[in-house]
Amino acid sequence: MSNSSDSNTPPEKLWGGRFTEPTDAFVEAFTASVQFDQRMYRQDIEGSRAHARMLKKINVLTDEDLQALLKGLDQIEQEITDGKFEWSIAREDVHMNIEARLTEIVGDAGKRLHTGRSRNDQVATDIRLYLRDQIAFAIAEIRRLQTGLLDLAEREANTIMPGFTHLQVAQPVTFGHHLLAWFENMHRDASRLQDCARRLNVLPLGAAALAGTTYPIDRHFTAEQLKFDDVCRNSLDAVSDRDFAIEFCADAAILMTHLSRFSEELVLWSSAQFNFINLPDRFCTGSSIMPQKKNPDVPELVRGKTGRVNGHLISLLTLMKSQPLAYNKDNQEDKEPIFDTIDTLLGSLRAFADMIPAIESKKENMYKAAKQGFSTATDLADYLVVKGLPFRDAHEVVGKAVAFGVDSNKDLSEMSLEELQKFSDIIHKDVFDVLTLEGSVAARNHIGGTAPEQVLKAVADGRERIK
Amino acid sequence: MSNSSDSNTPPEKLWGGRFTEPTDAFVEAFTASVQFDQRMYRQDIEGSRAHARMLKKINVLTDEDLQALLKGLDQIEQEITDGKFEWSIAREDVHMNIEARLTEIVGDAGKRLHTGRSRNDQVATDIRLYLRDQIAFAIAEIRRLQTGLLDLAEREANTIMPGFTHLQVAQPVTFGHHLLAWFENMHRDASRLQDCARRLNVLPLGAAALAGTTYPIDRHFTAEQLKFDDVCRNSLDAVSDRDFAIEFCADAAILMTHLSRFSEELVLWSSAQFNFINLPDRFCTGSSIMPQKKNPDVPELVRGKTGRVNGHLISLLTLMKSQPLAYNKDNQEDKEPIFDTIDTLLGSLRAFADMIPAIESKKENMYKAAKQGFSTATDLADYLVVKGLPFRDAHEVVGKAVAFGVDSNKDLSEMSLEELQKFSDIIHKDVFDVLTLEGSVAARNHIGGTAPEQVLKAVADGRERIK
Amino acid sequence: MSNSSDSNTPPEKLWGGRFTEPTDAFVEAFTASVQFDQRMYRQDIEGSRAHARMLKKINVLTDEDLQALLKGLDQIEQEITDGKFEWSIAREDVHMNIEARLTEIVGDAGKRLHTGRSRNDQVATDIRLYLRDQIAFAIAEIRRLQTGLLDLAEREANTIMPGFTHLQVAQPVTFGHHLLAWFENMHRDASRLQDCARRLNVLPLGAAALAGTTYPIDRHFTAEQLKFDDVCRNSLDAVSDRDFAIEFCADAAILMTHLSRFSEELVLWSSAQFNFINLPDRFCTGSSIMPQKKNPDVPELVRGKTGRVNGHLISLLTLMKSQPLAYNKDNQEDKEPIFDTIDTLLGSLRAFADMIPAIESKKENMYKAAKQGFSTATDLADYLVVKGLPFRDAHEVVGKAVAFGVDSNKDLSEMSLEELQKFSDIIHKDVFDVLTLEGSVAARNHIGGTAPEQVLKAVADGRERIK
Amino acid sequence: MSNSSDSNTPPEKLWGGRFTEPTDAFVEAFTASVQFDQRMYRQDIEGSRAHARMLKKINVLTDEDLQALLKGLDQIEQEITDGKFEWSIAREDVHMNIEARLTEIVGDAGKRLHTGRSRNDQVATDIRLYLRDQIAFAIAEIRRLQTGLLDLAEREANTIMPGFTHLQVAQPVTFGHHLLAWFENMHRDASRLQDCARRLNVLPLGAAALAGTTYPIDRHFTAEQLKFDDVCRNSLDAVSDRDFAIEFCADAAILMTHLSRFSEELVLWSSAQFNFINLPDRFCTGSSIMPQKKNPDVPELVRGKTGRVNGHLISLLTLMKSQPLAYNKDNQEDKEPIFDTIDTLLGSLRAFADMIPAIESKKENMYKAAKQGFSTATDLADYLVVKGLPFRDAHEVVGKAVAFGVDSNKDLSEMSLEELQKFSDIIHKDVFDVLTLEGSVAARNHIGGTAPEQVLKAVADGRERIK
Repeated sequence: MSNSSDSNTPPEKLWGGRFTEPTDAFVEAFTASVQFDQRMYRQDIEGSRAHARMLKKINVLTDEDLQALLKGLDQIEQEITDGKFEWSIAREDVHMNIEARLTEIVGDAGKRLHTGRSRNDQVATDIRLYLRDQIAFAIAEIRRLQTGLLDLAEREANTIMPGFTHLQVAQPVTFGHHLLAWFENMHRDASRLQDCARRLNVLPLGAAALAGTTYPIDRHFTAEQLKFDDVCRNSLDAVSDRDFAIEFCADAAILMTHLSRFSEELVLWSSAQFNFINLPDRFCTGSSIMPQKKNPDVPELVRGKTGRVNGHLISLLTLMKSQPLAYNKDNQEDKEPIFDTIDTLLGSLRAFADMIPAIESKKENMYKAAKQGFSTATDLADYLVVKGLPFRDAHEVVGKAVAFGVDSNKDLSEMSLEELQKFSDIIHKDVFDVLTLEGSVAARNHIGGTAPEQVLKAVADGRERIK
Repeated sequence: MSNSSDSNTPPEKLWGGRFTEPTDAFVEAFTASVQFDQRMYRQDIEGSRAHARMLKKINVLTDEDLQALLKGLDQIEQEITDGKFEWSIAREDVHMNIEARLTEIVGDAGKRLHTGRSRNDQVATDIRLYLRDQIAFAIAEIRRLQTGLLDLAEREANTIMPGFTHLQVAQPVTFGHHLLAWFENMHRDASRLQDCARRLNVLPLGAAALAGTTYPIDRHFTAEQLKFDDVCRNSLDAVSDRDFAIEFCADAAILMTHLSRFSEELVLWSSAQFNFINLPDRFCTGSSIMPQKKNPDVPELVRGKTGRVNGHLISLLTLMKSQPLAYNKDNQEDKEPIFDTIDTLLGSLRAFADMIPAIESKKENMYKAAKQGFSTATDLADYLVVKGLPFRDAHEVVGKAVAFGVDSNKDLSEMSLEELQKFSDIIHKDVFDVLTLEGSVAARNHIGGTAPEQVLKAVADGRERIK
Repeated sequence: MSNSSDSNTPPEKLWGGRFTEPTDAFVEAFTASVQFDQRMYRQDIEGSRAHARMLKKINVLTDEDLQALLKGLDQIEQEITDGKFEWSIAREDVHMNIEARLTEIVGDAGKRLHTGRSRNDQVATDIRLYLRDQIAFAIAEIRRLQTGLLDLAEREANTIMPGFTHLQVAQPVTFGHHLLAWFENMHRDASRLQDCARRLNVLPLGAAALAGTTYPIDRHFTAEQLKFDDVCRNSLDAVSDRDFAIEFCADAAILMTHLSRFSEELVLWSSAQFNFINLPDRFCTGSSIMPQKKNPDVPELVRGKTGRVNGHLISLLTLMKSQPLAYNKDNQEDKEPIFDTIDTLLGSLRAFADMIPAIESKKENMYKAAKQGFSTATDLADYLVVKGLPFRDAHEVVGKAVAFGVDSNKDLSEMSLEELQKFSDIIHKDVFDVLTLEGSVAARNHIGGTAPEQVLKAVADGRERIK
Repeated sequence: MSNSSDSNTPPEKLWGGRFTEPTDAFVEAFTASVQFDQRMYRQDIEGSRAHARMLKKINVLTDEDLQALLKGLDQIEQEITDGKFEWSIAREDVHMNIEARLTEIVGDAGKRLHTGRSRNDQVATDIRLYLRDQIAFAIAEIRRLQTGLLDLAEREANTIMPGFTHLQVAQPVTFGHHLLAWFENMHRDASRLQDCARRLNVLPLGAAALAGTTYPIDRHFTAEQLKFDDVCRNSLDAVSDRDFAIEFCADAAILMTHLSRFSEELVLWSSAQFNFINLPDRFCTGSSIMPQKKNPDVPELVRGKTGRVNGHLISLLTLMKSQPLAYNKDNQEDKEPIFDTIDTLLGSLRAFADMIPAIESKKENMYKAAKQGFSTATDLADYLVVKGLPFRDAHEVVGKAVAFGVDSNKDLSEMSLEELQKFSDIIHKDVFDVLTLEGSVAARNHIGGTAPEQVLKAVADGRERIK
């Protein structure tokens, strides 16, 4: 077992006294965690540095001890970075591997480092530090993606495409406006991750095994060293809860759900039937059999990866369900879901941040599609209402005009004034300002609306918001 | 269909023109939503009031219209509250039911209310208003539960019980300290809900069907009326996303997971084997067959209800996965999971807030259990380390003492000084200060530690934090 | 509480003796189940009939008692069917409501019915009987849907459409063949449900509260009465496990996932961009604002409902996680997810079984789309391989031909023999047999292949398999 | 991309013709699958052998080709087994790695192996073969665990322990009987896995990319070679569906849920408060700090691992939701959840199969606990009913006797006949046969009941059932 202060360290087990047989070999492998928790080695070392400085401050360690420990920890960090560190399953987890190596290097001082802490509060500290770092990386990638969206939206502020509801053509929108919907999604995703990072940025160290420690520790000093905003107020809570990890996975699941929706659109838009965009070749693959194929692999894969993160979220919720306090061995299962969620999130964001700026719109196809299906019918109704007709009557007028259009194979904007006036004599020449696609989008000129003017404002505003 | 601006209103269908057959009767029932969305009627009416005032402000409505509408909406609210309102499946959803009734009451003005809005932005507004209200209720219940925990913790600041890891006795803790772990959990839960409420408190109205509207609407005015902090910046995003609902369910799932863990403890503590507490009779049931039974039904049921909320979270994540923009009929499925999550959350919190203050601790049983299993062994090791022994040697000394205790059936604190000194001559009379349960808990006297002094400080601190 | 033999029956609580205060009013409502478990009334009554006959057989009941009970149960069933039965929250659950009413009607005999059983084994019996019935209904709907698919596939055996991978045109397929993929999916879904029904068709009655009963019951007789295949072999298992319910929800989740995929295709095919099919008007809705809209509501809604069932599956898995034996109050939470899963499944299947036969294909659009993107490129390569060219060389030849086609805006089948022979002189006139869409699909003429001949065989075969 | 026939093979990309830039390096790594799909190498090779033999049978390959291919495949299998095979990311997946190496070894014949198949049907075949093998391993471990349960149940047929409902003492049961509840759970789990294995044992090969192939393949011959029961009837279905994988994960999730419940009991029973069993030391760990600790790590970890499998189930359901036919890149994400589910299942089953036979019961503690809480109160009521008292009166009599017992601190069996007769004069000396724990369990002597006689019968029966 690994993330607990009460665990086995074969072969030289500290706790072997009351045991009459060694740990079963399969059980040893089944219960070790060093294979996956070693990726927190930087955080573990950083936590040990801070803990050592605090022990020196309260005179549990001498200055010589401290200097030896810091030097030893530097050496270990270098060994690991250089790939020269020998990880041992027998030493179970990242904590014991590093501590045992430290004692090899610096002798007795290494044995004193564990004073006033346990692996229970140590692992809780490591995982928070690790998540804090990774969330910062994720937010940086979101910002990069958002910037790509703003740049593209700016270029496409005037590009008209059909807006869909029920995947049926509804009303014309600008492509820039559509892209900014994803900017907004990502903005809330970043905001959620920031809240999560703030909430987890509290120091568990000092909780020891579960009840605190008898040493006169200075937790605020340690917190400051590690840039935590505060200390956990309850030792039992500090070692046993993993709600921050669930919150992180939930935030990631929402973000991936957004990317899955965006991916769906990219796949649709790349199809021969929509043919709205061209995805850069370097994000696609062809076929070894069918020479004509160019597949949108990246959005498809990201769409598929959504499932992974939903799964990890459920893993963690199931894991924690009904566990009594305080630390239970079950909790060792928290790490792999977190790590894979991080990898999935960072990989998917990176792929999107790279890909989005390189999207090429096929403006003519978009425009042509927007003209299908009488997409400005609502505009005509609005026009009539403004002219004084009650909405129901207006709707009826437009219905008849559309029926005529279906029969004569003409869009509303393609009818002559005379034709339109057959349906209502309050229609005048100015109707064409609203019946064209350009008129339709330009008229939705309020904050949040699809008008090109609003898109450019929203882009400028967006640049401010992510500064 | 219901939560979409483009939908059917049998029998007098507005959109029947291009259709050659009526909606299938089963399909009509299969797709209606008024059965469940009627519970948002207050929010729907409040949103209509604000929208009407805004339309008046921009001169789309006259003052007479506005007054008629407000009066009509008041009447409808009263009818619904009085149970006199006739809900109609044929009118599909809460919006159409209210609007149609409004037109019955006030005539033409009713028909003008829908100007510049659609059911897509209307339902998005209703659900945000509704969630905002319910989150406020949930936070109020959390505060009540937290207050109950503080009161009980204060009374039990000196009560000693075993602290467990792996459900094995680890170290003594105070019952008050243990209870405050749940205070901390609930505090983060409230904090998450507050973040969610803040993030969702943005006005979708004005997005209309998907692209905004051609009327010169004043969205900030509407937002102010409805106490929204801001307006949604993108109309496509406003009508299509439900991330706030997923976030709410995720927050609720984490909270219920906390309650499931607390429930597990209450069930364990109520068992004959633990026998640490007495749950008030009014939260338990007996058996019609076995006269001796008293079952902890409430914590069991709350533990079971955790599954519901995890399920709703997955429902919503699955629902939104891969949906292209903007509104799709799928989204109608967002409401029932949200509503049931709210009911489950409020019911469970209420049950706990009622029950916790009435818990009676069985102090003697707790104390006796804490003496089992040499729970102060760590304290003896710490004592030796403070006296200068390296930790490994200290651990060995304690190991031998424990072995002697097992043989002689004595706890460490029950051994004489002479007996203890056989294992190490640096042990002196002051050892008993740390070997007793009282000494052990008192020594963990730092922020977050289990000492009674810290518990009382944490209680005082807690009262401040929830003010 | 309801599904347990040890529970409260206010106001005349049997078990009130050791209790000093009545159940809290909110707790009573929070813990009742009659609101939702009453839908199992038929099964509850049927189980009671069988139990009564068994008690008569082993002489615990007299023949007079039995006749009185059977008559009373008939009357109750009629009262419930007629909507005249007064359900009482105070009587908690369906079992107590029926038993109490029975005693009102037939007196003492009613009190004897509960001999040798408890609510724990009674509810386990009811839910199995209920699920068994509902699975039979579901399979009947699947068969109806499969028949609709076969009929449509037969009509569309020769209709050519593009087959997609990555939503890119890959190779031509027949529409009939495509539809039969859904026949196969549904076939496995039915098979899974049959396995589930077989596995759950085992009688729990006789397990009593948890340990069996002291009466000389004849469980095989009861099983026979209720058409169970066997009796549960272990009483603790019989009252505590709900794996059959999880299995049912898993089967339903897989089925709904299939329908969500089919729905996705129907939505795509109904879009202006694909325009492959016409969904009957009665399964669609229009828009009160946009006169041009016709939305595929039913497939959208079914696609959305997939989330519900995934959620219920997770609810049940979470519910059962880590529950010790035997019955715990948590288990009361098993019913609502099961019931809603059934409703969702039956509703979605019914909607599809009604809708599929009425789909109209737009053959010209499909054909035109299949000609896009050089969909017979693979056929040309295969042709060259058959003529002796190694595959890599063949691929290169085709690549060049495609490039020429792109430049000259010609499909492979539109090139002249001379043009084709420029790329390889082993191409002869017979190449056009494989280059046409008709040739391409006809050539895939093996079991499972897309050739019209195979489709008709598969249809005939399918009719046999669902007989 | 990997599991698709239409994918990239840098650096010598077959499909590079229409592409103007190489695949992005990050994208290449992001989309490769060989890191995880290489574990199916045996199945991939076995599938290739069968495919080659079939191609020879239909004269697409010569006998020389066939012999060369078989020899080459043997060599590759050996290289991989010996760890000498060089896996290449550039070759993307297990299929391309093996095929490319094969061509290196045997030349042109290697290039002919892919005739009439694609990676889409190849991967579908591999994964089915792989799952079929792993399910067989899982069932073997279940049988081993079941055998351990039978052996232990036989030894503990007469051991009396408390039966719990609501974790409150309900009625006495035998430990053997309790253990057999887990035998029954596991039996259904095995049955589910067998159904899954049967349903997936159908050959996809021959579906090619999606539509079948133009070669005159003999699919039944290939199926026979690979011991498949049948061939997939529809090519689109064959390459696109993964319902068997979801079914497998669902079966595994139910099984793990059972193990989580059993684990919960083992953890409870190992606690100082219950103290019912001793888990062998080799399945436990101690503490480096607390010398008294012995933690039940294995059941805790298995309980925690339940979350993993629930998560993978959701991953796959989310993955498949709303995917249109046929193969999409998303599907590459199916493998890791399956593989980790297999590892978790086999590891957990192995740990339990090893551990269960070594459990030592603490019979005295169990017996003592069973005497707590008037666990034979139901027996006294049943006794009175048999003597002719209506159940309600019987219940009242017992209630009074229990109240007397609480006051006088006597169990029902410890009261004298005179004392008992104070409550009802129909009580005679034979009452003690039912009031003792032994009498109580012995009386539940019907199939499924807890009587020792029934336990031994169930053990004998169980041995037959798993033969």
